[in-house]
Amino acid sequence: MNRLSRDPVALLKAAREGQRLALARLMSLVERGGDEARLLGAETYSHVGGAYTVGMTGAPGSGKSSLTAALASVVRAEEERLAILAIDPSSPFTGGAILGDRVRMQDHVMDDGIYIRSMATRGHLGGLSLATPQAIRVLDALDWPWVLVETVGVGQVEVDIAGAADTTIVVVNPGWGDAVQANKAGLMEVADIFVINKADRKGADDTRRDIQQMLELSSLGEWEPPILMTVATDQVGVDELWREIAAHREYLENCGELKARRIRRIDAELSEIVTRSLENRVVATMDRPETAKLKEQLMRGEIDPYAAAAQLISMAEDDN
Amino acid sequence: MNRLSRDPVALLKAAREGQRLALARLMSLVERGGDEARLLGAETYSHVGGAYTVGMTGAPGSGKSSLTAALASVVRAEEERLAILAIDPSSPFTGGAILGDRVRMQDHVMDDGIYIRSMATRGHLGGLSLATPQAIRVLDALDWPWVLVETVGVGQVEVDIAGAADTTIVVVNPGWGDAVQANKAGLMEVADIFVINKADRKGADDTRRDIQQMLELSSLGEWEPPILMTVATDQVGVDELWREIAAHREYLENCGELKARRIRRIDAELSEIVTRSLENRVVATMDRPETAKLKEQLMRGEIDPYAAAAQLISMAEDDN
Repeated sequence: MNRLSRDPVALLKAAREGQRLALARLMSLVERGGDEARLLGAETYSHVGGAYTVGMTGAPGSGKSSLTAALASVVRAEEERLAILAIDPSSPFTGGAILGDRVRMQDHVMDDGIYIRSMATRGHLGGLSLATPQAIRVLDALDWPWVLVETVGVGQVEVDIAGAADTTIVVVNPGWGDAVQANKAGLMEVADIFVINKADRKGADDTRRDIQQMLELSSLGEWEPPILMTVATDQVGVDELWREIAAHREYLENCGELKARRIRRIDAELSEIVTRSLENRVVATMDRPETAKLKEQLMRGEIDPYAAAAQLISMAEDDN
Repeated sequence: MNRLSRDPVALLKAAREGQRLALARLMSLVERGGDEARLLGAETYSHVGGAYTVGMTGAPGSGKSSLTAALASVVRAEEERLAILAIDPSSPFTGGAILGDRVRMQDHVMDDGIYIRSMATRGHLGGLSLATPQAIRVLDALDWPWVLVETVGVGQVEVDIAGAADTTIVVVNPGWGDAVQANKAGLMEVADIFVINKADRKGADDTRRDIQQMLELSSLGEWEPPILMTVATDQVGVDELWREIAAHREYLENCGELKARRIRRIDAELSEIVTRSLENRVVATMDRPETAKLKEQLMRGEIDPYAAAAQLISMAEDDN
């Protein structure tokens, strides 16, 4: 296996033959970004739409990983195959991500019908919003029918990633204020299905009522998000979750909303790529000696930041 | 008061005379962004460096608002004045922010030496990272000597905002895993002072040990972040926190690091402004008929996203 090529095309071929190491390398390539990822993108872009994506998001500790593991068991019982991308909000300074959550998935690691991958950025703001659709496209090209994207739904980027899925599950826990926090984080608007996990704890009914109230206050579309109760660690309620995912999929397919969602997704990806490309140009400009002079003026309060920014932009443009 | 002008210069003058409503309007102006905010920026940019900024961040529910309220009492006992900016991660879809946390600050609302303001973005990604330094500059120009910026330290943007302060306080709670979550969210690297709030609960010593271990594993500078125990709701440990803030300030001023931090801050702000300006250009390009055609090709898998992005960028450039 060590002689495995690093060439994206060869890796794709090896991954199609079932080599897990090849798939792992492809994912690392997507994470790293750059020219090889670009090349891989060009190899996979035409495979669009086969895979159905499920986003799962919620606060740290809400039991997303347990629920994912429980769902994986249901999916396997149905003889379906599931790829899982666990998005790790990595440290912005060291790039290190703690992958402890992986441990809970150990039941599935030897199963060919399940693929699990933790993804982390290497300190790039917005890197995940670029890497995630690319990773999904690779899995799609390798004929994975279901892709579950698990994110900690606390930052804007993570909410955006989960909300870009075909079906989005928002996980909360019983207890006062949990639904309020979810609402604050912008999770209510992206939810197609609510799950109250750890529903054997006190306060599950109150939480359900909180969510119902918030849903009544918001402007709903035709789909009314169901509110499910689960105890993921005991596999309670997980069959029903899988049925609701299927029901939401059927709804999206029948009313034409699935295509609309996917158009919005590609739209967002395109904007993101354009923005990042422009940012790279800015970074190059920030290193120039003229920029150092501008910064000195800023520090002394001789120029305002917006005027300085305008000067930087015209410098960057003169380069073209 | 209803005849208060909406002109930034007149508002600044009224705010200098102590009119709270004028200050509130200035802050709304900063939140909204646009030309008036720009004009305000041009009026305040030369007032740099008077205000000392303290960032406070931590997970939802860790007691940041209670700690802020407790700290405000200490600051008032010392006859200092404190402005507080509470950064609300607002819903990305509705722009609505729940300001329930304000309630806890009611002890201070009638006090002229305390100013409290919740800030929210109106759906702009990164809007807060632009609005926050502007809001600080306005408070600086109005001679507030201390500005405390409170953020929910869960998203990248919020961590960046808190980490950009002169002194950054990271708040955690007793209990297994809380320090680990803080580390995951990138909070360890930005902390100048750790606070274990609700320290009367079980597990406070374990949490202290967790933080100490993580600090030992990371590459520290000369300043060794103290780990304090507080019970904010009972005002326990809050005097010590205020002393540690003063000690950190003295350290930064003596070793020259304060200036270095502020240069990095203005650097980050400048990059952000440039990036957002470029983004606005992209948004304009996204609305053109040629772009719609590109998107159709993308949906059909006829072109890859990076190639499409390159075409969009050259279109945007041709406009200049």
